[in-house]
Amino acid sequence: MVEETRPTAKELLSLPRLAPLVPMLYVAWTDGELTPAEIRMLGTAARAQPWLDLRSTTVLARWLDPLMPPAPHELALVREHIRSAAQRLSLSPQESLAELGAKLAEVASEAQVLHPSLPELVSALATVEAALGVSGREAVRALVPSAAHEPRRIGPSEPTSFAPEALRAVLDRTYPEVRSKVREWLEAPAFRYPTSPQDTGKQREQVFDWMKQLADQGLGRIAFPEGNETGADLGAFIAAFETLAFFDLSLVVKVGVHFGLFGASVLFLGTERHHREYLPKVASLELPGCFAMSELGHGSNVRDVKTVARYDAEAGNFVVHTPSDSARKEWIGNAAKHGRIATVFAQLEVGGKALGVHALLVPLRDEQGRTLPGVRVEDCGRKMGLNGVDNGRLWFDHVRVPRENLLDRFGQVSAQGEYTSSIPSDGRRFFTMLGTLVAGRVSVACASLSAAKSGLTIAVRYADTRRQFGPPGATEVRLLDHQTHQLRLLRPLAKTYALDFALEYLVERYVKRTEEDAMEVEALAAGLKAYASWSATAVLQEAREACGGQGYLEANRLPALKADTDIFSTFEGDNTVLMQLVAKSLLTDYRQRFEDDRVYAVLKLIADKAAAMADRNPFAARRTDSEHLRDGDFQLRLLRYREEDLLASVAKRLRKRMAAGVEAFTAFNQVQAHLVALSEAHVERVVLEQFLLGVEKVQDPGLKTVLGRLCDLYGLSCLESGSGWFQEHGLVEASKALAIRKEVVKLCTELRPDAVALVDAFGIPDTCLAAPIGLGHLSP
Amino acid sequence: MVEETRPTAKELLSLPRLAPLVPMLYVAWTDGELTPAEIRMLGTAARAQPWLDLRSTTVLARWLDPLMPPAPHELALVREHIRSAAQRLSLSPQESLAELGAKLAEVASEAQVLHPSLPELVSALATVEAALGVSGREAVRALVPSAAHEPRRIGPSEPTSFAPEALRAVLDRTYPEVRSKVREWLEAPAFRYPTSPQDTGKQREQVFDWMKQLADQGLGRIAFPEGNETGADLGAFIAAFETLAFFDLSLVVKVGVHFGLFGASVLFLGTERHHREYLPKVASLELPGCFAMSELGHGSNVRDVKTVARYDAEAGNFVVHTPSDSARKEWIGNAAKHGRIATVFAQLEVGGKALGVHALLVPLRDEQGRTLPGVRVEDCGRKMGLNGVDNGRLWFDHVRVPRENLLDRFGQVSAQGEYTSSIPSDGRRFFTMLGTLVAGRVSVACASLSAAKSGLTIAVRYADTRRQFGPPGATEVRLLDHQTHQLRLLRPLAKTYALDFALEYLVERYVKRTEEDAMEVEALAAGLKAYASWSATAVLQEAREACGGQGYLEANRLPALKADTDIFSTFEGDNTVLMQLVAKSLLTDYRQRFEDDRVYAVLKLIADKAAAMADRNPFAARRTDSEHLRDGDFQLRLLRYREEDLLASVAKRLRKRMAAGVEAFTAFNQVQAHLVALSEAHVERVVLEQFLLGVEKVQDPGLKTVLGRLCDLYGLSCLESGSGWFQEHGLVEASKALAIRKEVVKLCTELRPDAVALVDAFGIPDTCLAAPIGLGHLSP
Repeated sequence: MVEETRPTAKELLSLPRLAPLVPMLYVAWTDGELTPAEIRMLGTAARAQPWLDLRSTTVLARWLDPLMPPAPHELALVREHIRSAAQRLSLSPQESLAELGAKLAEVASEAQVLHPSLPELVSALATVEAALGVSGREAVRALVPSAAHEPRRIGPSEPTSFAPEALRAVLDRTYPEVRSKVREWLEAPAFRYPTSPQDTGKQREQVFDWMKQLADQGLGRIAFPEGNETGADLGAFIAAFETLAFFDLSLVVKVGVHFGLFGASVLFLGTERHHREYLPKVASLELPGCFAMSELGHGSNVRDVKTVARYDAEAGNFVVHTPSDSARKEWIGNAAKHGRIATVFAQLEVGGKALGVHALLVPLRDEQGRTLPGVRVEDCGRKMGLNGVDNGRLWFDHVRVPRENLLDRFGQVSAQGEYTSSIPSDGRRFFTMLGTLVAGRVSVACASLSAAKSGLTIAVRYADTRRQFGPPGATEVRLLDHQTHQLRLLRPLAKTYALDFALEYLVERYVKRTEEDAMEVEALAAGLKAYASWSATAVLQEAREACGGQGYLEANRLPALKADTDIFSTFEGDNTVLMQLVAKSLLTDYRQRFEDDRVYAVLKLIADKAAAMADRNPFAARRTDSEHLRDGDFQLRLLRYREEDLLASVAKRLRKRMAAGVEAFTAFNQVQAHLVALSEAHVERVVLEQFLLGVEKVQDPGLKTVLGRLCDLYGLSCLESGSGWFQEHGLVEASKALAIRKEVVKLCTELRPDAVALVDAFGIPDTCLAAPIGLGHLSP
Repeated sequence: MVEETRPTAKELLSLPRLAPLVPMLYVAWTDGELTPAEIRMLGTAARAQPWLDLRSTTVLARWLDPLMPPAPHELALVREHIRSAAQRLSLSPQESLAELGAKLAEVASEAQVLHPSLPELVSALATVEAALGVSGREAVRALVPSAAHEPRRIGPSEPTSFAPEALRAVLDRTYPEVRSKVREWLEAPAFRYPTSPQDTGKQREQVFDWMKQLADQGLGRIAFPEGNETGADLGAFIAAFETLAFFDLSLVVKVGVHFGLFGASVLFLGTERHHREYLPKVASLELPGCFAMSELGHGSNVRDVKTVARYDAEAGNFVVHTPSDSARKEWIGNAAKHGRIATVFAQLEVGGKALGVHALLVPLRDEQGRTLPGVRVEDCGRKMGLNGVDNGRLWFDHVRVPRENLLDRFGQVSAQGEYTSSIPSDGRRFFTMLGTLVAGRVSVACASLSAAKSGLTIAVRYADTRRQFGPPGATEVRLLDHQTHQLRLLRPLAKTYALDFALEYLVERYVKRTEEDAMEVEALAAGLKAYASWSATAVLQEAREACGGQGYLEANRLPALKADTDIFSTFEGDNTVLMQLVAKSLLTDYRQRFEDDRVYAVLKLIADKAAAMADRNPFAARRTDSEHLRDGDFQLRLLRYREEDLLASVAKRLRKRMAAGVEAFTAFNQVQAHLVALSEAHVERVVLEQFLLGVEKVQDPGLKTVLGRLCDLYGLSCLESGSGWFQEHGLVEASKALAIRKEVVKLCTELRPDAVALVDAFGIPDTCLAAPIGLGHLSP
């Protein structure tokens, strides 16, 4: 009768002939994934062992009856038995269940039992273990955690291949003294995030106070040291701005509005008398200013703003007026609270003639902060982020400003009401004035880069310390040793480094721009602003998710980074609109290439095509070796080919439509997606090109290697995400597409040991980062 | 001497022979994009006109001298001249510059001049206009806006093809009465968002107050109408939850924690005495509860939590203890403020034996809200969103709870300290208990869907009213008539509709699950939770950006929607971890397919392969006609093929590694990206399959057509984004990849007129939506 119930653990353990099988008999019931069929199969294999007697066989069969699982406390007894016996053994971490069973049988007090010799036993048991269908070694580690298994790190564990300080010097290569000065300012005790949540009012005062301190330290003098255009160094100002962007982004944006947009409008649109009167007050923040361009009805299409500035020749002044509610100035930074004056963009009317958009200085508040007559201000209210910036709406009710308040560099009005300008076309004049916005776009791109660096620093450091999941019985594995985690953080890290070099190039082009290449620089700024801000949005989203719940806590700063930068893809030009601007500039350039010198253009096109076609030959399209894939020239050639091809094809599609009588606006609208694809292709090519040039300049071999890996990772990621297009055009064959994917994974593995050093090199002060999970001293 | 300076506008206009050319002479200088070469070319063409005399020719040449641009006020004079003359003409909107010029010449008072006849003149001028190289028709409209040009909508303008109410009935097809009851509750005046920003404390009280009102209305009874498992209808509860998610998401999550997680833990892990004692108090919210599973050190890997519950047989109670700081319960909703009791997951120890994770009810606060002895609570602090939910941390210092507090459905402890369970394996028992989380995952997926619907409703309605840019002289175009805008909003709209059908399937499978398919349903829930929450994150980001600055204002609610749902990809199972779980379940299933019936499995595999191979033949891979592309079976076959292929290849890669002695954890880690790709492929296939089945069931032909288009858009978008893979595997050739891209654009154009009706059909109450830019009554 006893035989008909299931055997107890005690019974099982009392049978010496079953001793070698005990570990497997335990695992059979505790591995959650074993199916009844597998348990039966194990029983069959076990019962075939020659040393078993009838009683052992019977108990064994019942113990493994899928219809009668043992009670948990019985299993717990078996486990305790194995554990206590195992303590007397010296087990290696590579022990199999068969080896463990054999050793247990050997040390069992009933050693007189006629077992085969140890090697024979192990080999016999191995067959049984195979029937079990689970990894025996892992089961042993789970079962006997006391067996001295070393905590291991999965993946490479070599030390960092370079000194972060050396790489930081590379990243700080332009205006290093400006960058270190700003870092110093930010490390002063005044620049600490408030410890408790603040209401909007307090937050705005805090930000204004910080800005005042920066002005006192001389931030304004970085931009215009001489108080006029002669000594102006916007490159230095942008470097300061980029460094400031490691800290509170409301402060950064408010600084951008006052010193950048407002200050630059006085500098570039005004003339000497404006410089003399206003620039010192801009630098000292005595006269906080606004940049009032956008209107409710016209955010992107600012050429059609409706605010009017009519010249009254009799009175000798301008009448600034908001003709309708949709013409109200919208989203104006500094307007809700601190701004005392604004550069207002309005349609100029002189002597009944409409002369297009011009900018005028319009006072908003007196020294006590009271709004002036005729000016109405409304607060935009709470936003997703940047609540330290006081955005407001402005209405002007026939507000009169002196004739001198016209910023008249590009268009002048005499006292008698005669208008003059060196630029005849309203349109072209307006776009020349818009040139002042270019510095803003360059700055937003750089601030996006800094915010992405902050997010990556937090996420990479956290991923290097946080452990989750791991092999049974061993220490859990660091997040950054999980493959998916490497891909989600190291690809964006490569892109961030790539952008660092591309933006250096942009700033240089901007600072050295001439009238000839101004349009090209504007397009470059538009494209990189869009690319960098979208990249920041994606990086910060990924960083937030990669930090799990910790990333959701305000204390860890990722929420603020994400929310504050989200508008970067909208302000200073909506990204989608900017991308179309880039494409149109490429198209103009394309047309001119043919117009200026038809023969040269055609020859060049043929040469370009020939070089690119080399990649289309089946041999090249199939090359899959690492050496070839990690050849920057190869990567770049493909990106160039794509850009040229998209350009030629969109030009063809447009010509076809126009020839068929489709009006330009509609024709462009019908190929909008194509235009955006072209711009993306163009920007990616420029970024990779600049990254390659940047790496070339680096001397230190260690730095060159790690930057080279990042550059390959960026280049191959571009090819990976564009894989559909490249295959479609015969540049990449199936085997190569697969090889590219694998190479990306491989590069991540190679970069893994350097990941923390790569974010340390960003040199973000801990007080700016301020995320408990991402501080420098936490990393090992 | 006069001839050496540039001619004035007056001079130009005084020459009757130049009259026909005046519009072109104006445009030459005002079109910003004309190069000097082009201006010269125009001059050459103009001077060739036979009717010009010497003086006209001289003035003409000087007027077009690229080195001497006219002054802006001169151009303004010319414009005024043209405009006033044009007022006397009846102009069609299709007038060319040549036609305008000819008509102006005709009406000019100096009609005696010997011009050719009107048709001849127009034809002669057309040559000149061609030399100008700009679109004459657009230039005319910009120049003479008074010419009665009708404001036009670009793109299709047919009326909506169906009634939104009819489609809404389709979307509300399951539990319609529950959905309409909840909508009714939400439309009560008490459920209004506060008009001013609230501090955390107030926000929490508001949310608790709302929750109490829902409890009073009978929300709890929807889940367990009988107060026990018999009548439990979690499907109805999930439908209520999904509808609630149109409103404040803090409320939704708090409801989910209390009624969903806490209530379900009592229902499913407890036994009759727990049901009797607790469920009524859960339903009435008399006893607000928490679900304390996650720990600081173990968020994803909850099987290894460290909190201990040791049974003290003498005292007859459990001692619950937090052994270290990393074992503190983290992120526990309801814990910081309102929770009075918690379901605590802890390692159970009975009689010195470790029995794995079990759940116990542990009281936290008394009726006055005072924390009980031994319990320590800390507030998690401010989060990115969901600040109406009081997340907290919990530490237990040897807290004693009665033996009866063990939720003992799957494991019982007798008074004497004997442990029993119907599930022998600790692991399997734990995963059975985790089954309670499945409802949570299904609910999160459904709430994600609702949030995405809210975001799309706002963005689509705004895009349908907001105008920006347009052809010169015409009304600006609605955002939704821009191609890029259609792509960015209508593709996500299609995905959202697809998910609506897929989640209906998930809820049905969940409600009807049996022990046999429980694992499969869990994997389905995991996959769809990840897919739906990631989709919501992407949709809301896109919606925010698509609304520009307006989308950044808190008043328009997109910031809250984005911030509140951001954690959906993390909680109730981190998405990346869930995707691996899905892949592992597919692998287990794959193994069993062979194990259960080798012959059948092999035959089925061959049949599947054969069907899929049909698409690999060059003919099918090259088919590019709409009819073929819009064949749901074709789309589905490709998604199925990809899934099967990824499954077979990852199984092979894993086998290879294991055979080479790589331990399972490492082997899986080395193919993690592949596993995630497999899961995505699987989920996309399921979603498309369910969408197709759902559309098939719809009777109304109008609805069937529009849903069919959405389904095609979803299916083809999947093929478009996976284009690289499909080409790599010979399923799609270059021409087909291109055709798919074009078909996606075409579908967006076709769906454009229905876009607003498609979001109206979601039936989100305006009081819930509460975004001024997205309210229903604003749409035309």
